[in-house]
Amino acid sequence: MHKHRIVIVGGGFGGLFAARGLCGSDYDVTLLDKRNFHLFQPLLYQVATGILTVGDISAQQRVVLRKCKNVRTLMSTAYDIDPQRKIIHHERGELAYDTLIVATGVKHQYFGHDEWRHNAPGLKTIEHALEMRHRIFRAFELAEGESDPDRRRRLLNFVVVGAGPTGVELAGALGELAQRIMVGDYRAIDSRDARITLIEGADRVLPAFDPRLSKKAQRYLEQLGVEVRTQCMVQDIAAGRVQLQQGEEVETLEAETILWAAGVQVSAFGRILAKRTGEETDRGGRFLVQPDLSLPNHPDIHVVGDLAHFSLGEGRSLPGLAPVAIQQGEYLAKTFKRRLKNKPGKPFRYFDKGSMAIIGRYRVVGQIGGMRVTGFTAWFLWAVVHVWSLIEPGQRLSVTLHWLWRFMGRTADRLITGNPPKTSNILKARGIDPKTFERAP
Amino acid sequence: MHKHRIVIVGGGFGGLFAARGLCGSDYDVTLLDKRNFHLFQPLLYQVATGILTVGDISAQQRVVLRKCKNVRTLMSTAYDIDPQRKIIHHERGELAYDTLIVATGVKHQYFGHDEWRHNAPGLKTIEHALEMRHRIFRAFELAEGESDPDRRRRLLNFVVVGAGPTGVELAGALGELAQRIMVGDYRAIDSRDARITLIEGADRVLPAFDPRLSKKAQRYLEQLGVEVRTQCMVQDIAAGRVQLQQGEEVETLEAETILWAAGVQVSAFGRILAKRTGEETDRGGRFLVQPDLSLPNHPDIHVVGDLAHFSLGEGRSLPGLAPVAIQQGEYLAKTFKRRLKNKPGKPFRYFDKGSMAIIGRYRVVGQIGGMRVTGFTAWFLWAVVHVWSLIEPGQRLSVTLHWLWRFMGRTADRLITGNPPKTSNILKARGIDPKTFERAP
Repeated sequence: MHKHRIVIVGGGFGGLFAARGLCGSDYDVTLLDKRNFHLFQPLLYQVATGILTVGDISAQQRVVLRKCKNVRTLMSTAYDIDPQRKIIHHERGELAYDTLIVATGVKHQYFGHDEWRHNAPGLKTIEHALEMRHRIFRAFELAEGESDPDRRRRLLNFVVVGAGPTGVELAGALGELAQRIMVGDYRAIDSRDARITLIEGADRVLPAFDPRLSKKAQRYLEQLGVEVRTQCMVQDIAAGRVQLQQGEEVETLEAETILWAAGVQVSAFGRILAKRTGEETDRGGRFLVQPDLSLPNHPDIHVVGDLAHFSLGEGRSLPGLAPVAIQQGEYLAKTFKRRLKNKPGKPFRYFDKGSMAIIGRYRVVGQIGGMRVTGFTAWFLWAVVHVWSLIEPGQRLSVTLHWLWRFMGRTADRLITGNPPKTSNILKARGIDPKTFERAP
Repeated sequence: MHKHRIVIVGGGFGGLFAARGLCGSDYDVTLLDKRNFHLFQPLLYQVATGILTVGDISAQQRVVLRKCKNVRTLMSTAYDIDPQRKIIHHERGELAYDTLIVATGVKHQYFGHDEWRHNAPGLKTIEHALEMRHRIFRAFELAEGESDPDRRRRLLNFVVVGAGPTGVELAGALGELAQRIMVGDYRAIDSRDARITLIEGADRVLPAFDPRLSKKAQRYLEQLGVEVRTQCMVQDIAAGRVQLQQGEEVETLEAETILWAAGVQVSAFGRILAKRTGEETDRGGRFLVQPDLSLPNHPDIHVVGDLAHFSLGEGRSLPGLAPVAIQQGEYLAKTFKRRLKNKPGKPFRYFDKGSMAIIGRYRVVGQIGGMRVTGFTAWFLWAVVHVWSLIEPGQRLSVTLHWLWRFMGRTADRLITGNPPKTSNILKARGIDPKTFERAP
C-alpha cells in the first residue's frame, strides 16, 4: 500500500509552512510551485526601493526543505484539476493526490482596467519589484540629464495608488529615499524636489487599522514629503499621467512613475479550482472554507492563505495577511499528523499577533492586541519581528546588515537592470547606418 | 573662462578609477555610462552560479562618487564622436570635452557565429549572469521532474566553452555546486550525476598562466568532476547540442546548458571612435596607444582598459585584466593633476601584482611575481585580495558573508527569475480555452 499522498499547490507562506509542518511525517508530500523560490512578500517593497536585494527575501523551497526526505519539490505550473480522479495537471505531467492543499494566493488587478498595467506596475512578484526599482531610479537618472524644467518636474513626480500597508510602506520608502538617502547624489537636481502623491479611495490611509493609527501614519508620510489624498479615485491612467477624481473635481497629475498598490484578484488556479469543483466562492473569488479549511463538498481539498475566505461570522473574514497563511499552513500539517494517530481534528483558530506598517526610520504604526504602538519602540519591534520571520537563518544576518546600511543612509541595490539600448538601434533611430562603423575585414 | 572639461566614456574599472582619481581636483569631470552601476566583472561568474547576489558585485557610480562635487555622473549611451569639434553625441544630448577618456571596453563574441548566441550565452553583463543562472538551476529543476532517462541525462550535461580564467572559474564553480553544495537537495536526481565538460582550443587550460599552474588547475577541475578537453574546437552549436572537433575526430555532445566563455570584441563605441579618428588599431580592434595612453594623432583622447593595446615591445601587449584598467585610470588622473601644476607627465607603467584563478574551495592557482601559489594559502590570499578590491565598504562585509555561506555549503541566490509561463498560455497550448474558467460577472 502506498503512503498517503499530500500535494500542495503553491509555495507561498501557506504552502511552504504546510510542507515544513509535514516534514518527517509518514506522508508522501509534493510541493508544486511554478517558481523555484518562496518570496517573503511583506518586504517586497523594500526591493522595489533598493533597500534590500532579491536574495534577502527569497528562499529556494528545496533548500528550506532539504532535510525533509518525505517532501519532494517540483517546479511546474498547475493548470487543471480533476477532483473526481484526484489528479492535478501541471505543465510537465500529472500528480495524483489523496489530500490536496491549494495555496496559490492572489495576484494584483486593475478593476477591469488591464490597459493600466503597463503604465502602473503592481507589486506581487520579484519581477514587479525589479520593474518598479528600474522605473524609480531611472526617473531620477533621466531627471539629472534633463534640461527642460517641465519634463524634469514630470520625471520627479511619483504617484502611488492605494494606501493599504503596501502603498503606505512604498510611499514612505520613496519619501525616505528622496528626503534623506539620496540627498547629495545628484548634481543637476535635488532629490528632495521629488513629489510623491499617495492616492486612496477610502477616507483614510491604512483603512484596516485603528483610525488613530491611520492619522499617525498620515502624519509620518507628510513628514517625509508624501502628499496624501484620501477619498480620491483613479479614473484613468496613461503614459506619464493619471486622472483623479476627488468629490466633484477631476484633476490630471503628470507623473513619469505611477505605482499600483490597490486591488487583488484570485490566482488563475483558484478560478480553475472553482470551476472544476463547483464550490462556492465570495465576491472576490475566495473559497468559503469549512472550520478545518476544507471545501464543503470536497473534504479532501483544503484551501489556505489569501485564496481562502475564513468566516469570522457577521460578514467578517480573516484578512489576506502572511501570518494568517502561515498559521493555516501549520494548522493543516498538525491536523493531518493528528489523523495518522487517529486523533480528532480541531477547528482552525487564528491567533492575531497584531499588524504593523513601517513608513520610514523610526516611523512605524502598529496594533498589538488592543494596544497601539508608534515611533521608535514600534520601529524596533517591527525590525525584530520581520528579521525573525525570515525563512533562512542566513537571511536574518543579511537583512539586518542591509537595514543597518539604510539606517546609515545607504541602500543595498539600486541597479537599473534589463539590457540598455543597443548602440546600433540608437544610430538607426538617428538615421546613421551602423554598418558605417564596421571594420574592414 | 570655464574649467577644463574631462569627459569619461564608460564606468568600468578604467573609467571609474579615473573619475575617482580626479575627485576634488580643479577639473570639471563627467562620467558617461549607459548603466547606472559599475560591475565588478571578475566575480560575475559567482552570480551566474548563485554564490553571490547581484548587489554584491555592482556599485552605483554616483554613490561611489557622491562626495566628488566636481564629478557629474550621467546615464546615457554614447553613440558618436566629433573629434574636430570635440563633442560626444549621446542618447540624450551632446557633451563637449577638452580631454576625453574612452573606457568602453569589450564585449564577448562568437567568432562570426552570432547565431550561437541564443544557445550559448556569454558572461559580460549582469543580465548574462542572470541568464546563465536561470539556465543552470532550471536544468536541475527540469531534471528532477523528468522521467525519461535520456532527456534527464541531457539536462544534467553542462558544457563550458573556453578555459581562460572565466571559463575555468565557471566550470569549477559548477563542479562545486554539483559535487558538494547541492548534494541532497533533490529527490529524483543526484546532483553529482551532473557532467561538466570544459572545452579549450589551446593545449592547456589557463593558457596565459605558467604551464605548471595550468596542470594544477586541470587537476583541481578533475577533482570536482569537470572533464577537461584541450585542443578541442567548437564547430557548431545548436539548441541542446554542441559539435566538437578534436584532431580528426568530430563528436556531438548533447547538453541542455552550453555556456560561452571564449572570445571578446571591442565595444560599439570603440569601433565608432576608430572610424571617426582614423587611429590605428590592432587585429582585435584595440587602439595602439602612446606611452601616456593618448592616441597618436589625437593627444586629447586617451584610451584605457580592455580597449587599449599598450605595447610592451616584441609584439607583446598588456592583457585585458581589471588591474591593468584600474592602474591606467589612476595613472591618467594623476597625470592630469600633474598638468594643473605644470609638472611633466611620465609614461604609464604597469605594476603586475600577479594573477589568480579559483576553481573551488581551497582550490586556487596563482602567480605572484615569479612565485607560483596553489592550495589553501592561495585560496585565502585570493579571498582577501578580492574582498579588498570591492568598491563599496559595505560590499566587503556582504561578500565575506556570502563566501562563508558557500563555505558551509550554501549559496546566496539561486533563483530562477524572469516571468514563469502564464497559466492561460499553458491552457491554450493544450487546447483548453482559458475563458472556460472566467467567473460569471
